[in-house]
Amino acid sequence: MGAVPAWPPRSTPRLYVETPLAPGALSLSGPPAHYLIAVMRTKAGDPVKLFDDATGEWLAVATHVGKRDLTLDVTERLREREPVPDLWLVAAPLKKGRVDWMAEKACELGVARLVPVVTRRTVVDKPNTDRLRAHMVEAAEQCGRTAVPEIADDVKLPALLRDWPADRALFFADELGGAPAAEAMRARPGPAAILIGPEGGFDDDERAAIRAHPAAVGIALGPRILRADTAAAAAVAVWMAVAGDW
Amino acid sequence: MGAVPAWPPRSTPRLYVETPLAPGALSLSGPPAHYLIAVMRTKAGDPVKLFDDATGEWLAVATHVGKRDLTLDVTERLREREPVPDLWLVAAPLKKGRVDWMAEKACELGVARLVPVVTRRTVVDKPNTDRLRAHMVEAAEQCGRTAVPEIADDVKLPALLRDWPADRALFFADELGGAPAAEAMRARPGPAAILIGPEGGFDDDERAAIRAHPAAVGIALGPRILRADTAAAAAVAVWMAVAGDW
Repeated sequence: MGAVPAWPPRSTPRLYVETPLAPGALSLSGPPAHYLIAVMRTKAGDPVKLFDDATGEWLAVATHVGKRDLTLDVTERLREREPVPDLWLVAAPLKKGRVDWMAEKACELGVARLVPVVTRRTVVDKPNTDRLRAHMVEAAEQCGRTAVPEIADDVKLPALLRDWPADRALFFADELGGAPAAEAMRARPGPAAILIGPEGGFDDDERAAIRAHPAAVGIALGPRILRADTAAAAAVAVWMAVAGDW
Repeated sequence: MGAVPAWPPRSTPRLYVETPLAPGALSLSGPPAHYLIAVMRTKAGDPVKLFDDATGEWLAVATHVGKRDLTLDVTERLREREPVPDLWLVAAPLKKGRVDWMAEKACELGVARLVPVVTRRTVVDKPNTDRLRAHMVEAAEQCGRTAVPEIADDVKLPALLRDWPADRALFFADELGGAPAAEAMRARPGPAAILIGPEGGFDDDERAAIRAHPAAVGIALGPRILRADTAAAAAVAVWMAVAGDW
């Protein structure tokens, strides 16, 4: 890593914006404006870093700061959108709190797509996609990322298995045992997914259906019981370390 | 894994107790009693599983249940205390919430000892050892563990480095780069520790001191910035997967 430029300062706020960025004026209102005006106390002349999960990260300078809105001059692209390893996290929705942590960690660890899968023992019926996305965007803003994981529409487990892309390995923690995770993941490079069940686990029929799927690879995550959110973060980290871009 | 016995039922409450367990009568009062009486609604004749982080896990049956206390008959040992991989997590205290999550994950993932290290940029002066222990005990109770990580006294970074045991590898995430984590960890089997800095990172002097230590091994945790608690869980998981007991 080369020298760290003196400007913009490290404390420069980073903000995700929905619209694809390009040089020129950009107006912000609503929550992003509030964040800059009231929380970061941005004044005219201050720098702001923006990213759009499409073109990369851009430098902008505040030109007009109102009470509820502000205008920025987007000047130059600092970085392209980063490459993202081809890993999906397919996870049953968990209780609020735990699912938020899981989404945040999935983003920090570089997951490409979060797929909410509904299983028989799922406690939460409707995954709150907006809240999960907000948590992931915040993690991306705070961790300097230029990409945010996609969130797929939620899908029931039988449909997920039926429509599963044949070229994508589906790693799942198998209580009956499987190859140690690092070994199994290193042996199957290429597009991958990690399947994590709900707090109560999969039921017998679900486990049989997963195990029978040609793309499924049973893995062992050690001798200790891991909560769903822990298993998700641990398995993603191991994949990144042995088959991803670490 | 063999057949799952029908009794005691899977819903049997698991409770950590401080005193070493042995067959015979055991009286409980205070928070453990409250948990059984008010939360789990334990009645005379109901089973309870107990562990003491010393002798293992024991089966007990409630014999007398009062308003604030109860007596159990400890009958048989179900399991010995589990083996624990020799990994320490040496982490600067983080803000409440994140540090709780980190302690919980450290316990679930099987860390042997948590060492709170105070660095120049540590935000929280005094790590709340009692609360961290409570979080880890709860994680152990809920995840069927028979061992709980030790928590060392907190120590300042210079003293930690000065008194560091020479035979224990000290893995730390080095922003200047290092061998990929999985590779570095696989190359150095034996007692290990993972060093995680505070939210603001180590300062230049601290990083130089760590790097200069003969036991220190710089590792890379990928191209993305990870928050301290994420880095802790990810690095521990990778160590467990490639050098631990997965």
